Amino acid sequence: MTDHPRPDPIQADSDAHSEHHRIPEPEIRHPNPAGVRRVAVLTSGGDAPGMNAAIRAVVRTGAQQGIEVVGVRRGFSGLHRGEFRLLGPRDVANTLQRGGTLLLTARSRTWRTPEGRAEGAAHLREWGVDGLIVIGGDGSFHGGYALQEEHDIPVIGVPGTIDNDLYGTDHTIGYFTAVETALGAVDKLRDTGASHERIFVIEVMGRHAGHIALDVAVAGGAEEVFIPEDAKPVGTVVDIVRQSVSKGKLGSIIIVAEGYPGGAQGVADAIAQGTGLETRVSILGHIQRGGSPVSSDRILASRLGEAAVYALMDGKRGVMVGRTSGLFTYTPLPETWQKSKDVSHDLYRCAKTLSI
Amino acid sequence: MTDHPRPDPIQADSDAHSEHHRIPEPEIRHPNPAGVRRVAVLTSGGDAPGMNAAIRAVVRTGAQQGIEVVGVRRGFSGLHRGEFRLLGPRDVANTLQRGGTLLLTARSRTWRTPEGRAEGAAHLREWGVDGLIVIGGDGSFHGGYALQEEHDIPVIGVPGTIDNDLYGTDHTIGYFTAVETALGAVDKLRDTGASHERIFVIEVMGRHAGHIALDVAVAGGAEEVFIPEDAKPVGTVVDIVRQSVSKGKLGSIIIVAEGYPGGAQGVADAIAQGTGLETRVSILGHIQRGGSPVSSDRILASRLGEAAVYALMDGKRGVMVGRTSGLFTYTPLPETWQKSKDVSHDLYRCAKTLSI
Amino acid sequence: MTDHPRPDPIQADSDAHSEHHRIPEPEIRHPNPAGVRRVAVLTSGGDAPGMNAAIRAVVRTGAQQGIEVVGVRRGFSGLHRGEFRLLGPRDVANTLQRGGTLLLTARSRTWRTPEGRAEGAAHLREWGVDGLIVIGGDGSFHGGYALQEEHDIPVIGVPGTIDNDLYGTDHTIGYFTAVETALGAVDKLRDTGASHERIFVIEVMGRHAGHIALDVAVAGGAEEVFIPEDAKPVGTVVDIVRQSVSKGKLGSIIIVAEGYPGGAQGVADAIAQGTGLETRVSILGHIQRGGSPVSSDRILASRLGEAAVYALMDGKRGVMVGRTSGLFTYTPLPETWQKSKDVSHDLYRCAKTLSI
Amino acid sequence: MTDHPRPDPIQADSDAHSEHHRIPEPEIRHPNPAGVRRVAVLTSGGDAPGMNAAIRAVVRTGAQQGIEVVGVRRGFSGLHRGEFRLLGPRDVANTLQRGGTLLLTARSRTWRTPEGRAEGAAHLREWGVDGLIVIGGDGSFHGGYALQEEHDIPVIGVPGTIDNDLYGTDHTIGYFTAVETALGAVDKLRDTGASHERIFVIEVMGRHAGHIALDVAVAGGAEEVFIPEDAKPVGTVVDIVRQSVSKGKLGSIIIVAEGYPGGAQGVADAIAQGTGLETRVSILGHIQRGGSPVSSDRILASRLGEAAVYALMDGKRGVMVGRTSGLFTYTPLPETWQKSKDVSHDLYRCAKTLSI
Repeated sequence: MTDHPRPDPIQADSDAHSEHHRIPEPEIRHPNPAGVRRVAVLTSGGDAPGMNAAIRAVVRTGAQQGIEVVGVRRGFSGLHRGEFRLLGPRDVANTLQRGGTLLLTARSRTWRTPEGRAEGAAHLREWGVDGLIVIGGDGSFHGGYALQEEHDIPVIGVPGTIDNDLYGTDHTIGYFTAVETALGAVDKLRDTGASHERIFVIEVMGRHAGHIALDVAVAGGAEEVFIPEDAKPVGTVVDIVRQSVSKGKLGSIIIVAEGYPGGAQGVADAIAQGTGLETRVSILGHIQRGGSPVSSDRILASRLGEAAVYALMDGKRGVMVGRTSGLFTYTPLPETWQKSKDVSHDLYRCAKTLSI
Repeated sequence: MTDHPRPDPIQADSDAHSEHHRIPEPEIRHPNPAGVRRVAVLTSGGDAPGMNAAIRAVVRTGAQQGIEVVGVRRGFSGLHRGEFRLLGPRDVANTLQRGGTLLLTARSRTWRTPEGRAEGAAHLREWGVDGLIVIGGDGSFHGGYALQEEHDIPVIGVPGTIDNDLYGTDHTIGYFTAVETALGAVDKLRDTGASHERIFVIEVMGRHAGHIALDVAVAGGAEEVFIPEDAKPVGTVVDIVRQSVSKGKLGSIIIVAEGYPGGAQGVADAIAQGTGLETRVSILGHIQRGGSPVSSDRILASRLGEAAVYALMDGKRGVMVGRTSGLFTYTPLPETWQKSKDVSHDLYRCAKTLSI
Repeated sequence: MTDHPRPDPIQADSDAHSEHHRIPEPEIRHPNPAGVRRVAVLTSGGDAPGMNAAIRAVVRTGAQQGIEVVGVRRGFSGLHRGEFRLLGPRDVANTLQRGGTLLLTARSRTWRTPEGRAEGAAHLREWGVDGLIVIGGDGSFHGGYALQEEHDIPVIGVPGTIDNDLYGTDHTIGYFTAVETALGAVDKLRDTGASHERIFVIEVMGRHAGHIALDVAVAGGAEEVFIPEDAKPVGTVVDIVRQSVSKGKLGSIIIVAEGYPGGAQGVADAIAQGTGLETRVSILGHIQRGGSPVSSDRILASRLGEAAVYALMDGKRGVMVGRTSGLFTYTPLPETWQKSKDVSHDLYRCAKTLSI
Repeated sequence: MTDHPRPDPIQADSDAHSEHHRIPEPEIRHPNPAGVRRVAVLTSGGDAPGMNAAIRAVVRTGAQQGIEVVGVRRGFSGLHRGEFRLLGPRDVANTLQRGGTLLLTARSRTWRTPEGRAEGAAHLREWGVDGLIVIGGDGSFHGGYALQEEHDIPVIGVPGTIDNDLYGTDHTIGYFTAVETALGAVDKLRDTGASHERIFVIEVMGRHAGHIALDVAVAGGAEEVFIPEDAKPVGTVVDIVRQSVSKGKLGSIIIVAEGYPGGAQGVADAIAQGTGLETRVSILGHIQRGGSPVSSDRILASRLGEAAVYALMDGKRGVMVGRTSGLFTYTPLPETWQKSKDVSHDLYRCAKTLSI
């Protein structure tokens, strides 16, 4: 019947367990063939919860390895203006749990010009910086990559964006918190939706991708989800809602990714016109960017910040550190914006299956 | 210098991105070569947040596939007493976000006897059940496996325990929420610890393993972590604390896994004796088992509940469904308790590195 | 110098304290001069967190006093259609912590007609109901009062609305939770606002009143607050923002009550036109209605639900039970909509003072 | 039947409402007959959430009124050692939402000696301080009052303690957050208690008083509550639990104040011996002291911090500012420890009534 070993005796709810392997005290010293002595770090683009945890990890890993860390304020804007400051382990104490970014972030038009980047490179050389760590999204990696290519300064990317739309990592720093915040809002709206037997159409962030929407839909038990990757015609929307209502559900939750054509308002309008049913639209907006990061973001940020310093020590350049299928990986920066990270087909099916 | 394609023009913070692939409407129908028509589901062992999401996924996947689902109350205790009830999609509405288990859970001495299991098997046959899904930990899988081996009823395990101590899956249902709850407590204790410049020694759950402790230590920025897998002598503890204090930190957070010899009290006593420093002990206890599940647990539970029904439809038996490195996998039930899932050496190193 | 008794000896941080008075086991039986044997309860208008706690209190106080409680579903709509059901203590178990209302709520056009109310009265008589408890806002009290006046059925109002805009009680059930939810959003937006050094203009609920806005402004440390009670001209707005920016603050939080002319968008437009500064608008919307009630709402709801039953037993009719300055009070229903509850001038001053 | 005006027409759920009174732009300038130019502020005793909000209010009210504020670190310990620093409005930016106290707190044996207090007074005179604001509990007020009496320096107390055990104010700063934290834990334990059908005996803080316990019991729907003010004999406990179990409840929650003789463990032991039922004990401990303050604590702290500065400007001395029945009041410091603030008899009755 089966060739699996059979436990004997049987102990339901027993405390039996195999012995865990002993693990040794970890070796903390990392080799430094690249001879790195000083690195700079900045955050750029939209802020994301966990950016502070990543900065802290860069600073403390540096300190642990005898490498000085220079913090650059206001992203590339501060880089070309030379807003630099040395950061020690105590400067990042008590920041792990804070949302936002202590290094601030800003847009920079100047950085898009070769002159702007040359000024930034000059500042980095003045400060004796051996490599730059950029925490941000694909636009930020563009900016960092140009610096490296034009001025031969090694750049390492750390994926920090709530949208999770970067090729080369399963998750980006801030994504888990954004999903959790959106889910908290969905749970609240379900309470009031059920009490009034109303349809709530909720728009979540994600730029051009449906990652947040799909996770929130499955975790929030949404009746329907609309993502840019499957741009169904409006007629289908209306049919789906009619079916949902006919199942006798008390209130419905419909999740719409901001990248879906027409957004939540478009879906709500289509439902109103097609069914005559009353809907409420809720656009969650910027609250999804803030807040104390959840554990998964703090841990991911801590690991990737550490990995970014090691990457520079190992002589890596022009790559993003990421985590894919549980392994820490390097992806050439250009691939992060040239290749696409698809949403999970299986998760999409799961969302449909469980909304019966 | 590099052979990676070079983006042109440079757009810092740009909105440029590759096109996401379109994905088709998912195929929901799953083949049913095993001809399953009715399955039973129960929860057993310690409850874990997300168990309700898993039950809901089993019930709704069943309904979607034309399979009836029988809910068994109070785990194996209810199985041998025949506490059965058919569950439809509406019976599990609004349960996804609830902690605990709507099917209840209990210990059963009777189930440890062949007679008890024979009674359970008889009830399952009366009800025409083609397979049993057991949501729980290794003790529960023992109980389910014995039923299968003795009475030829296919059993599928779904990993539901906050301790994350099951071989065959990277994470267990409830683990993420338990970490988050413990982390919330650590954040609070850090506030008061810093204000009083005190050492807090905090004990977290995890049975014989250090998974929760290690994640909480990294995410909570602990100054030190003690796990059963690295049972350092007490003298080392004292030295570590002395170093930590000498760094001039305002308050210290020390995380101790419940499986570490002596627990948090033992560590605190050693510190008091060795350094004369005052400490506060906090044993978080059962709050780590409750609460609304976080998104990661709800999603994992939804996927594994779905997978468990498909496994029975595919003719699988005696396996646990799990997720490893992003893939859904089957592990023979006996391996789940015979093999050990180690904590991550790299995460342990990261905890040490960042506590500088 | 002072005539106050002088403590001796001095004990900083001492544990000295006066003896607390012993209190006796409470007398639970309440007199019932009105001879009430059965009461009905409904929720009406917008749902508010804590309504379930109020329903539970009505049901359990009834059970404790030997009075049967009939739950009416869907507010006045269900009242005129006779959607009635007896509720016992176990029917409301595990509902205290749930948002929304288990009795549902709905709008009813029919109830605005004498015929509709006559049908409702007939159903109440059929069921032998001696009094009706209406949990809701001023519109709901209108509806209840008309029933009493036309059909001589005693009606008691319980203030349940997040807007806190009812004369006759310091706080309404749901208000504390709405403030807390809005505050949680403000805390998150401050993170991202500070990181980008941006102005966030946040619109909170409150209908025609500034209660929520003012509490959120003080608790959230807003730089400015706009309430309907002080409809300053747009020019003032712009000056205020200029001053705030000139103080060198990293990001600004501006709270706008939904009742303020033009709302958050109007304020943001005025700022953009007058200063050229970039703003972000966030309209928090319906999330403020949902979620598990905070302790203050649960306790207020429990006390007022209990008080409503006692009021009927005492022969009261046509009044709202409320809590004013710590005392439980009765206010004639018409006063609840005819008189106005002003926001606190002192709190308004405090908001201004602390935003320096 | 009634002489109340009758609304016509009836509008259920209508938007009708009376006009709110316009309020004028507030007058921010406060008179300063006492000619105060510089005040000092410290936090003392156990830390409480909202202490930072109170410090911020003192600093910013001072700045607004042209008064300098000196922050004293580590309570009376720092006072006698002269750990002083001027605080401006920006120094307290972004602190409102933080738990703990940025001024730190500590115990001081030296302060209990006249010599220690003389040193503190000398430091205050050196710095030209016109008055001292002490944020803390009764022990801290003792310490402050002695300073005033011996050295003629006006002292104002601000009630900051989670225990709510101070005469002269309905609530103390930190109390609301402590109740909310404890309630969050009770909600989680109820999940797991119901799933296992277990009795949870939960110990909450409150020193010698039952305030936290009683609020948590009502808000958490506890089956029973044990407070020091009603020290029932053990036999009664057992009878109560037997009754509760016989009602067929799924799991029971029993709240015990830390000041109740024997604490949670004593109650659990009595139940185990008297009924043979299995219980779980959970002692929530120090988590109740930490965390971001809830809105009620932030608002109370902001108002009382403001009021403390005004009190000194008005020439008050040796009093605690408090809020009683919605009014801001002064209580001579000695009364705060000589008089007792009783728990509410009515709330105690409510707890019993609703646990049916």
